[in-house]
Amino acid sequence: MPSLNVSPEIERLISLLSKLPGLGPRSARRAALAMLKNPNKVMVPLTQAMSEAAEKISTCSTCGNVDAQNPCHICSAPGRDPGSICVVQDVADLWAMERAGAFRGTYHILGGTLSALDGIRPEDLNIASLIERAGREEVKEIILAMNATVDGQTTAHYITDHLQDAGVSVSRLAHGVPVGGELDYLDDGTITAAMKSRRPF
Amino acid sequence: MPSLNVSPEIERLISLLSKLPGLGPRSARRAALAMLKNPNKVMVPLTQAMSEAAEKISTCSTCGNVDAQNPCHICSAPGRDPGSICVVQDVADLWAMERAGAFRGTYHILGGTLSALDGIRPEDLNIASLIERAGREEVKEIILAMNATVDGQTTAHYITDHLQDAGVSVSRLAHGVPVGGELDYLDDGTITAAMKSRRPF
Repeated sequence: MPSLNVSPEIERLISLLSKLPGLGPRSARRAALAMLKNPNKVMVPLTQAMSEAAEKISTCSTCGNVDAQNPCHICSAPGRDPGSICVVQDVADLWAMERAGAFRGTYHILGGTLSALDGIRPEDLNIASLIERAGREEVKEIILAMNATVDGQTTAHYITDHLQDAGVSVSRLAHGVPVGGELDYLDDGTITAAMKSRRPF
Repeated sequence: MPSLNVSPEIERLISLLSKLPGLGPRSARRAALAMLKNPNKVMVPLTQAMSEAAEKISTCSTCGNVDAQNPCHICSAPGRDPGSICVVQDVADLWAMERAGAFRGTYHILGGTLSALDGIRPEDLNIASLIERAGREEVKEIILAMNATVDGQTTAHYITDHLQDAGVSVSRLAHGVPVGGELDYLDDGTITAAMKSRRPF
């Protein structure tokens, strides 16, 4: 980042903001400026919210979700089925599933995918704890909801192999045409998958 | 924003982050998650930087820059010419000028542009203080560096009109082909301006 000729306090604020995902140097400068221009309306409330979150939020020891309680409010909710576990890569994917509202079971967060390129091995992910959970009496079904990328699918295969003895049904999300999607814009792999899994109308 | 089914602390953090410029709901969620996953490496240093900036940074009473000192380090630098004032819309534009390093005078930050649509009148901007500064003995030159938009140019005309009695030379940034730009991708207005202001080679 080129020197902005600003005070070290501002420099440091911009530098830390630019390390957040989704913020480049330019958007970090804009965000910092918005804070500096409105300290009382923008910066102070955000600082308080961050301090409070840093203090209260921890990782759920069962599923790996971030929450103010442990076990998290999903693991401990009476209305959610502990017999069905949806395995996702990341908390963001759990949030995406919850936004869709299509699942009433519990989750397990891997914390990433296996990756030979990035040197991420099974012991770097929450796979052992998943296999332990899958062996429990009440667990009947594991739904693998990793991203449909090479790494995501490799991880899904690895987990499936290691769940063979657990006596649970293992499924994965369906591939197909996204709702609202146009065929002309879809890749060949998706069209092939959608054709193979066609359903009676 | 749809409900994420998360704890109120996380909800509030995401909601405040999404109000920063350049962050939508999705990037606010990603940023919040990065903080929550690495509280000690990401959240705590950022919180400290923000608290420190909120405490130390104020607005320069001469030019409107944000800095830890007042007058700001540009206004008070001995090497910078107080006789030449570059008028910009915003602190971000001052930073852009400083990055380019093409100006060794001082600045004046308007805080926006005149806009009939948004109801921004001359008294909402730092125009009176500019006219007051322009009337001082040492000031010889005002360079108008507003954005080349309709509102920016309207503001430039308004200021030029009100500086007629101040006895200073008023100029504006040149229009032309951006360095590295390709003619085929430029709009007609820019090409016309560049042609009109052509220079001997």
